[in-house]
Amino acid sequence: MTHSGTAGPARGPVIGILFFDGVEELDAVGPWEVLSFWAAHVAAGAPRTLAISPDGRAVRCAKGLTVSADHSRDDAPGLDVLIHPGGQGTRALAGDREHLDWLRARAAATPITASVCTGSLVLAAAGLLTGRRATTHWRSLGRLAEADPGIDVVHDARFVDEGSVVTSAGVSAGIDMALHLVARLDGAAAADRVRRGIQYEPGRG
Amino acid sequence: MTHSGTAGPARGPVIGILFFDGVEELDAVGPWEVLSFWAAHVAAGAPRTLAISPDGRAVRCAKGLTVSADHSRDDAPGLDVLIHPGGQGTRALAGDREHLDWLRARAAATPITASVCTGSLVLAAAGLLTGRRATTHWRSLGRLAEADPGIDVVHDARFVDEGSVVTSAGVSAGIDMALHLVARLDGAAAADRVRRGIQYEPGRG
Repeated sequence: MTHSGTAGPARGPVIGILFFDGVEELDAVGPWEVLSFWAAHVAAGAPRTLAISPDGRAVRCAKGLTVSADHSRDDAPGLDVLIHPGGQGTRALAGDREHLDWLRARAAATPITASVCTGSLVLAAAGLLTGRRATTHWRSLGRLAEADPGIDVVHDARFVDEGSVVTSAGVSAGIDMALHLVARLDGAAAADRVRRGIQYEPGRG
Repeated sequence: MTHSGTAGPARGPVIGILFFDGVEELDAVGPWEVLSFWAAHVAAGAPRTLAISPDGRAVRCAKGLTVSADHSRDDAPGLDVLIHPGGQGTRALAGDREHLDWLRARAAATPITASVCTGSLVLAAAGLLTGRRATTHWRSLGRLAEADPGIDVVHDARFVDEGSVVTSAGVSAGIDMALHLVARLDGAAAADRVRRGIQYEPGRG
């Protein structure tokens, strides 16, 4: 399901992960690890994972880590998957008209828009969750319902797949959601290889 | 168990996480998230998590993410916990005399030295695992045994705690190990609060 367009050898999907000031580190890096591990070691084509920040500059994450970006919102290429993590920084983004306009436009042009944790509050502010089932960090389920009464808030799922929009529960649930996205893009066997590769098997050695 | 020394109000432990070119992103950021979530939201004092790189400059991780460092190896303050992640970059570090000398000296001065994934191969190269039980990524268990026949390689644990040296299995097992370190530093209830906070409960909503 490549969407990015230009002719040439099969390149595989392009996945954009949003980094912003106050992004929760694991919200972003969990899916980054899963999808870039898949791209590097499992996928037949050559998918790419890109770090996108609002202005293309480095961001300071919620817990103090500084991460560089590959692209700004405006110069990012066409995407097959856009992932919006959560974190304290979402409080500003949920009221940032420029960000919400960009997100709506990107979501309309991107086959899958996904959120981790409180990233779903930004999707809700952009009106992307109306009439859909969605979830978020367990502590923010009430806020999600308040953000848009048209959302059918799901309380007991690691992630909720509504086709073009996928939302996950808190922080580390983004890993589960990203493994699900690999399964959608490349099948369950590919997702299992990634899970084994990153040894995401709590309770097993 | 503060080790960092200077007088003043209780500051809590100082935790250093090593970042280097070719570090596997989740190996480092999983423990970073756990320990900095604890520091920010759970701990009574004010623990700090610091990103340390060999020369203090930004590093390019194994899957392409660029992360800045707070300190170089040489200018990092006294630590209570030093975490050495894994990734492709460990192949160079395991043969880098300057790095191994630093690691031996730091381990001698640091109450807990821990590794994630193939980070244990660097600890082994520094001679820190001789006579101890230790583990690593499931694909590298043979390499760990070859690195030092004096290691009692454990095949079926998420992490192995030998007191002053703790090693974990692959990539995401670093999250389990870091939760265990929180339990050692601050008790099981604190670790449970962090686990709930980052919703690290695969299989639950």
